[in-house]
Amino acid sequence: MWDLWMRRALALAALAEGRTSPNPLVGAVVLDANGSLVGEGFHARAGEPHAEVGALAQAGDAAQGGTLVVTLEPCCHHGRTPPCTQAVLKAGLARVVVALEDPDPRVAGAGIRELRQAGLDVISGVLNAEAAEQNRAFLHRVRTGRPWGVLKWAMGLDGRTALTNGASQWISGPSARAWVHRLRADSDAVIVGGGTLRADDPLLTSRGQRTPEPLRVVLSRSLDLPAGAQLWDNRVAATLVAHGPEVAHRPIPAGPERLTLPACDPEALLLELARRGCNRVVWECGAELAAAAIRQGCVQEVMAVVAPKLMGGTAARTPLADLGLERMDQALVGTLLPPTPIGEDWLLRLHLSA
Amino acid sequence: MWDLWMRRALALAALAEGRTSPNPLVGAVVLDANGSLVGEGFHARAGEPHAEVGALAQAGDAAQGGTLVVTLEPCCHHGRTPPCTQAVLKAGLARVVVALEDPDPRVAGAGIRELRQAGLDVISGVLNAEAAEQNRAFLHRVRTGRPWGVLKWAMGLDGRTALTNGASQWISGPSARAWVHRLRADSDAVIVGGGTLRADDPLLTSRGQRTPEPLRVVLSRSLDLPAGAQLWDNRVAATLVAHGPEVAHRPIPAGPERLTLPACDPEALLLELARRGCNRVVWECGAELAAAAIRQGCVQEVMAVVAPKLMGGTAARTPLADLGLERMDQALVGTLLPPTPIGEDWLLRLHLSA
Repeated sequence: MWDLWMRRALALAALAEGRTSPNPLVGAVVLDANGSLVGEGFHARAGEPHAEVGALAQAGDAAQGGTLVVTLEPCCHHGRTPPCTQAVLKAGLARVVVALEDPDPRVAGAGIRELRQAGLDVISGVLNAEAAEQNRAFLHRVRTGRPWGVLKWAMGLDGRTALTNGASQWISGPSARAWVHRLRADSDAVIVGGGTLRADDPLLTSRGQRTPEPLRVVLSRSLDLPAGAQLWDNRVAATLVAHGPEVAHRPIPAGPERLTLPACDPEALLLELARRGCNRVVWECGAELAAAAIRQGCVQEVMAVVAPKLMGGTAARTPLADLGLERMDQALVGTLLPPTPIGEDWLLRLHLSA
Repeated sequence: MWDLWMRRALALAALAEGRTSPNPLVGAVVLDANGSLVGEGFHARAGEPHAEVGALAQAGDAAQGGTLVVTLEPCCHHGRTPPCTQAVLKAGLARVVVALEDPDPRVAGAGIRELRQAGLDVISGVLNAEAAEQNRAFLHRVRTGRPWGVLKWAMGLDGRTALTNGASQWISGPSARAWVHRLRADSDAVIVGGGTLRADDPLLTSRGQRTPEPLRVVLSRSLDLPAGAQLWDNRVAATLVAHGPEVAHRPIPAGPERLTLPACDPEALLLELARRGCNRVVWECGAELAAAAIRQGCVQEVMAVVAPKLMGGTAARTPLADLGLERMDQALVGTLLPPTPIGEDWLLRLHLSA
């Protein structure tokens, strides 16, 4: 019977998609003792009030004897804001309905226990799968210490990402290109390799749909970077040039921040980006770096935009270089979600199996 | 108001999908003077009665003053069976509702004119687009002299049709492989090149879902064919080995029929297959022959089965070899139909623009 309200709370949480890192997405509704809606809230960004607090503030005295429906277990520790369990207890609620336990080791069920011990009726696990799906990036980062990796590419139906001569503008249509800006707005960082930078001189922003813009990252083996590039203009968005210790002596262009990793590989980069609070990153790179990211488990989800085109070309670029497979049963498998149309293109999403 | 009955007639026509060549698919219903259904029929195969005749026979006297709803204009010429217009007039109908004019130059509107001149109310063009879609293979063959070409492949989401070492069994799941048998059952011929024959020794049948099985065709440049192959056993299904005049002196294995074409190319083959009454063929070939077929306009529709897998491999096989494109605006474009699930795979269909 709580599904309907939990769906509303999930919809509220989704309003801040991509803007709460390193925190999770959380939404909450408060019902009065008669079951009428008296408060709504969501977590807008780190440092701002948690969803429960906003919803309870809106409800005021009407929350007395009522129900809080919240997508994530209320926290019971002092972070940048006081524990939510205190606010819940102070509001005089009779019941709390939760979708997902908070995997943060400082919470991990302790919030629910505290509320139960105080005599509240706590119902946990309502729309658990939907809530886990919504917060998959946060949950993955807490569990693995790396951000959730999305690998995005656009291709013709025959799997080509460029013509033989390298031409690739444009494979997908204007709607799909606008969708990419949205994808970046929902992410904390966008990663390319030196090859993509040299070939495309991309801007890699959300075109203003996110403030601040996601961090733009170049992972470069050689630091053989162009002196002029759109990415070096850090008035538009911050840029990070990451590389291995082998090239630590080489200069980089003025503008971007520099990061020397213990090794020039996707895993080392993601550990650092998680440390900086990234829940979700988008790989918008070429076939070699994409394959390396997959081999190191740095991709959880592939988003392939398929254009209604045939491009051909035996030597033309493809989405992925070698994965080192020798038998079909070694292929990386996952689940293809139902495709969605984007203009004349179709988006195919593959959730890779863990 | 006739849409509902025309949909029923189209559904009847579809019962013979792939089995009427060189004839079109046709379905018909007969309503009595009160609008009640009194007869149904469809064209089952060439040489057997036309759809109208079956439906009128079932209706008997109840057709008097009634309506015939038929997906294709009744024929007005003697073919293997007498003109349908005669049967329609004899039945004493008041009205005929037609979806599509028959493009056969012996009909082409003359059937409708004959009925109108006899005083019947003829309504033409009801669900015209749906009827044209259903009979696209027949219509294409009548207009161009070539069968409708379907190019089928299975790939990972990254566009690979094999691993680097050539392994390709299996990319798609059991449901998709059963679907391929169905696809063949709906077609008149299945075409491979010598490379696919040598690599896979395929059977290329519908596994008994069509009688007779579709013609199996090998288009071979070199006639460098294995002495033993499943295709040579013509007790299972007929096989045709087609080649150019350059290798006309070379022997072929016992079993298959031999056809020397004016040139070893897809177009020459399709002209001959149309002459033999094929409305629809399936290309199940490798990247080189597939690209050649596309370049010669021998592919109208691509059916790509996308498996929930990543395979990678810079040198791994892909669906299409060179199409000779130098700019993105030269890419072959079409319309991607809404994808349909087949087990864990998804079928993407591209109708190429004419």
